[in-house]
Amino acid sequence: MTEKETERKKETVGSLEWLNRYEEELRDMRHELHRYPELAMQEQRTSQYIVQKLKEFEIPCRMTGETGVIAGLTAGEDLPVFVVRAEMDALAIEEKTGLPFCSAYPGRMHACGHDANTAVLLCLAHVLSRNREKLRYNVRFIFEPAEETGEGAQFMLDHGALENPCPAGILIFHFANQETRAMEIQKSISTAAIGGLRVEIKGKASHFFQYEEGIDAMYAASRLVVAVREINDTFLGEHPFVLAFGCMQAGAGRNIVSDHAVLEGSLRTFSKKDFQGILAVLEKRIKEIEADTGAEIHLEVTGEIPPFVNDHALVEKGMPIGRKLFGDKCYLGEKPFLAADNAALYAEIVPGMRVVFLAGKEGEQAYPVHNPRFDIDEAVMLDAVKFLFAFLTKDGE
Amino acid sequence: MTEKETERKKETVGSLEWLNRYEEELRDMRHELHRYPELAMQEQRTSQYIVQKLKEFEIPCRMTGETGVIAGLTAGEDLPVFVVRAEMDALAIEEKTGLPFCSAYPGRMHACGHDANTAVLLCLAHVLSRNREKLRYNVRFIFEPAEETGEGAQFMLDHGALENPCPAGILIFHFANQETRAMEIQKSISTAAIGGLRVEIKGKASHFFQYEEGIDAMYAASRLVVAVREINDTFLGEHPFVLAFGCMQAGAGRNIVSDHAVLEGSLRTFSKKDFQGILAVLEKRIKEIEADTGAEIHLEVTGEIPPFVNDHALVEKGMPIGRKLFGDKCYLGEKPFLAADNAALYAEIVPGMRVVFLAGKEGEQAYPVHNPRFDIDEAVMLDAVKFLFAFLTKDGE
Repeated sequence: MTEKETERKKETVGSLEWLNRYEEELRDMRHELHRYPELAMQEQRTSQYIVQKLKEFEIPCRMTGETGVIAGLTAGEDLPVFVVRAEMDALAIEEKTGLPFCSAYPGRMHACGHDANTAVLLCLAHVLSRNREKLRYNVRFIFEPAEETGEGAQFMLDHGALENPCPAGILIFHFANQETRAMEIQKSISTAAIGGLRVEIKGKASHFFQYEEGIDAMYAASRLVVAVREINDTFLGEHPFVLAFGCMQAGAGRNIVSDHAVLEGSLRTFSKKDFQGILAVLEKRIKEIEADTGAEIHLEVTGEIPPFVNDHALVEKGMPIGRKLFGDKCYLGEKPFLAADNAALYAEIVPGMRVVFLAGKEGEQAYPVHNPRFDIDEAVMLDAVKFLFAFLTKDGE
Repeated sequence: MTEKETERKKETVGSLEWLNRYEEELRDMRHELHRYPELAMQEQRTSQYIVQKLKEFEIPCRMTGETGVIAGLTAGEDLPVFVVRAEMDALAIEEKTGLPFCSAYPGRMHACGHDANTAVLLCLAHVLSRNREKLRYNVRFIFEPAEETGEGAQFMLDHGALENPCPAGILIFHFANQETRAMEIQKSISTAAIGGLRVEIKGKASHFFQYEEGIDAMYAASRLVVAVREINDTFLGEHPFVLAFGCMQAGAGRNIVSDHAVLEGSLRTFSKKDFQGILAVLEKRIKEIEADTGAEIHLEVTGEIPPFVNDHALVEKGMPIGRKLFGDKCYLGEKPFLAADNAALYAEIVPGMRVVFLAGKEGEQAYPVHNPRFDIDEAVMLDAVKFLFAFLTKDGE
């Protein structure tokens, strides 16, 4: 039998095992990407690698800015477009996995699985390009930079990622490792709304021997940190939320009233209503603290991202495919994550679905994402390719 | 008349105007010292200048460590020793006075008058060396490094500054500028007890989407800052005091529970009893916050300095001399300063008196000490020399 004939044979029995032949290529691509992690908006080497691979696969693509890549696979003029997105950026973390393909760059690491995401999307593009006749959609592949900083999705949208034509939907996916080989699709809300919070507080310096002449910016900042904890304990929202500050820099010396303080934090909610409601309470408390202390407090909400809400029809379509691949290890999730993904900006424009592939390594301790020892069971990457392949082709029907 | 005869003539009329001839030398020395400010324990050039001048004046001296200098003027074997101290160190401040003799070193400035103090002490040594027959004491001159960091006095004590023999007393002085030509001696307590406070707080990091897994060190730090304000408002001490933190560094990112916070501040009181009492309350509040938050809080009290209490007999002797020189502009102060001077360590061993010379410039805005525009009316330096001269000689009787 020719290769094509073998593939068709397997297909007829409803199996996707013929895709296993791509496993080595998939692993190799992940290793290469893992070895050269690049921070947000600096993904030059990564994007060049992607472009080179797409060229090998004979899939047309274009750069967006210096590091984003959009590729398109056309199966038929009349087919709707469907988008699959992978992130490309790494984190400023010193890798401690000890993997043979571990980061070649000190202080940088793919600790959020974006290496796997990019490898999966490249592999998917390869497989689909060789099986165009099965496609139900023309597929657009978005390789997104700067997801970690919350900039990437807007950047890609600004470069027309969802235009000409507007797609029928978008799939995004994520690797986690709290459980071995499984997958999960949230029934509705998948990730949280998030806004970065930056608070600048202006006081007035004075030597401590004239303490009362000063306005203590650090004291005002501390009052705000305490107030924020109270808001967490008392605000009655629709859903759980987290309002918190992660860092403070205040003052200049041990004997001088601090004239300046900066707080940085974030607000995570599962609905825009909660987001706005909590922000309003925060602003009220800020006004009170200003009145009490005399300090000037300026709150800036940065990089606001809405919640990612899975589209009902896409979930209806995705769950049976997941069940076929993972059996009862494909979960319909009820409890969303307080993590955020800027891909929610895409899902505000077109129907979207976020899939989580659980890829804990059998018998090994799982370190969570953003940990210097984060790793996944690479075998699940192939399951991800299979799921996405099935979702986009006749094989998923 | 010979010079000696002229001096005696003026002396007989109870005037110290003959000292005016030293004014130019005094200014020149201050300008030279002001031009080359050196930070604590780095006063190499300054100490070399002092040693060179003392050599010119034929006054024996010895170095203590690399930058301290102790000189001795002997007038008679049976006379008691009296000490006068001047500080030598400058501050890490970029000078903005625009003076013709302003700092030659970027980012360093004599903004606490130690240039004037050293010049006055050198001039005093010169004058006394030429008028030994008037001396009531053998005089020891202490040129102290590192006053600003609170290290200098202990350093000089470790080098035997008050030994062989133990002196009868010590005079220290300070230039301020909130008023034109005047002086002040505090009736009893002159400067505050002070202790540096360093608080290290250990929490547990966790991404905000698992906020409850973390222990928020910054929250514990903020609670402590708020608690400290309450202690200031509620503690019933013998005297006024200031307990405050001046700076905080906490956390690593806007999305991560801070696992580490550092607070630096100080406690200033006018009595050891208040100092210990307030510290005990602070420690109690720390225990409460530890119990509430789960954070580990470590308090370190550094560089503790006692209050400088003026000796009654020295004040009784000093006030009439001050009145003779400054008239009703010589004040007997009732309200001490919450500033501290590590010279209090000397005054715990021997009777001490601290004199403040007020040297605001007529018709000019006065910028306080530690301000990049701090300056003084140099004419008052000569008044300081006169006061000290009179105090140590028959002329003060």
